[in-house]
Amino acid sequence: MANTAILSKETELTEVFITSEELLEHWQGHRRLTRRVIEAFPEDKLFTYSIGGMRPFSVMVMEFIGMAEPGIIGIATGQWKTPDELLHHSTNAKPQTKEALLQRWDEITEHIDKIWPQIPLHRFQENDKAFGQWEGPVYSLMQYMIDNEIHHRGQGYVYLRSLGIEPPFFWERQ
Amino acid sequence: MANTAILSKETELTEVFITSEELLEHWQGHRRLTRRVIEAFPEDKLFTYSIGGMRPFSVMVMEFIGMAEPGIIGIATGQWKTPDELLHHSTNAKPQTKEALLQRWDEITEHIDKIWPQIPLHRFQENDKAFGQWEGPVYSLMQYMIDNEIHHRGQGYVYLRSLGIEPPFFWERQ
Repeated sequence: MANTAILSKETELTEVFITSEELLEHWQGHRRLTRRVIEAFPEDKLFTYSIGGMRPFSVMVMEFIGMAEPGIIGIATGQWKTPDELLHHSTNAKPQTKEALLQRWDEITEHIDKIWPQIPLHRFQENDKAFGQWEGPVYSLMQYMIDNEIHHRGQGYVYLRSLGIEPPFFWERQ
Repeated sequence: MANTAILSKETELTEVFITSEELLEHWQGHRRLTRRVIEAFPEDKLFTYSIGGMRPFSVMVMEFIGMAEPGIIGIATGQWKTPDELLHHSTNAKPQTKEALLQRWDEITEHIDKIWPQIPLHRFQENDKAFGQWEGPVYSLMQYMIDNEIHHRGQGYVYLRSLGIEPPFFWERQ
């Protein structure tokens, strides 16, 4: 039994693509970058500027928050709530200023760090239906949240460039 | 020994965030989407159009290829070559038309599928220095290639929208 436990531990550490802890750090690294992109926008442009009929960056950011906050609970527990059902979690649920948006962002950062250790490792390979709509293995739902943030944040980079503002380095995640 | 082997197999299948095979499929799914974004560009705009002094989408695509082709070899073998060192692999290394670019894209798709099964699973948790420059665990180098593609492809979406062209659905990966 002792040998088995050691093998299992070793398997977890070296025979996986990425560990759960590394994935959390990877996501939070992306979220730190997104936070810097929010900061880089002039206050008014954050809420109004767009190209080609797309959404202002603040609306994209609220989408990230609206997926992450209930999403991490759904991943941990299998209970999928809508962003509206979680509104009472914050007195600052619909931020109208950059400062309020950043404060909301930081609440979600803490929320994720708090919930993450509660996710049983086997959850990621289970199938679930996120928000009662999107069916698939939980790892793909998790990956979707990160990818969606990278995708739209890249669009925020174009907004910034077209405003003559240099965006943060993509590779800087601290 | 038999029980240990079973536990190890089970650990691999249910106690990981994502398996190696799933990650390959995840990447190739993103690459199928990128291919559709290439296709969505009018021929001339693919090579010339930009916003805010950024690169045309074709140049970003060549960056994806320039990372993926030598990158997958580096991940599998620890040997990091520059894109130029691999030029002989293709008679179509610097595509000047959309058709040639798509053909090059498809070569890389096959290349990745061929090399991927040669990656020892333990490689992903090893440290390496990609292209003699970027140091980190191999999973993070791999993740960087995917993330970089999502990031710049998101920028391609803004180019398309500003040209009045509807981009492919982000969630469609088949």
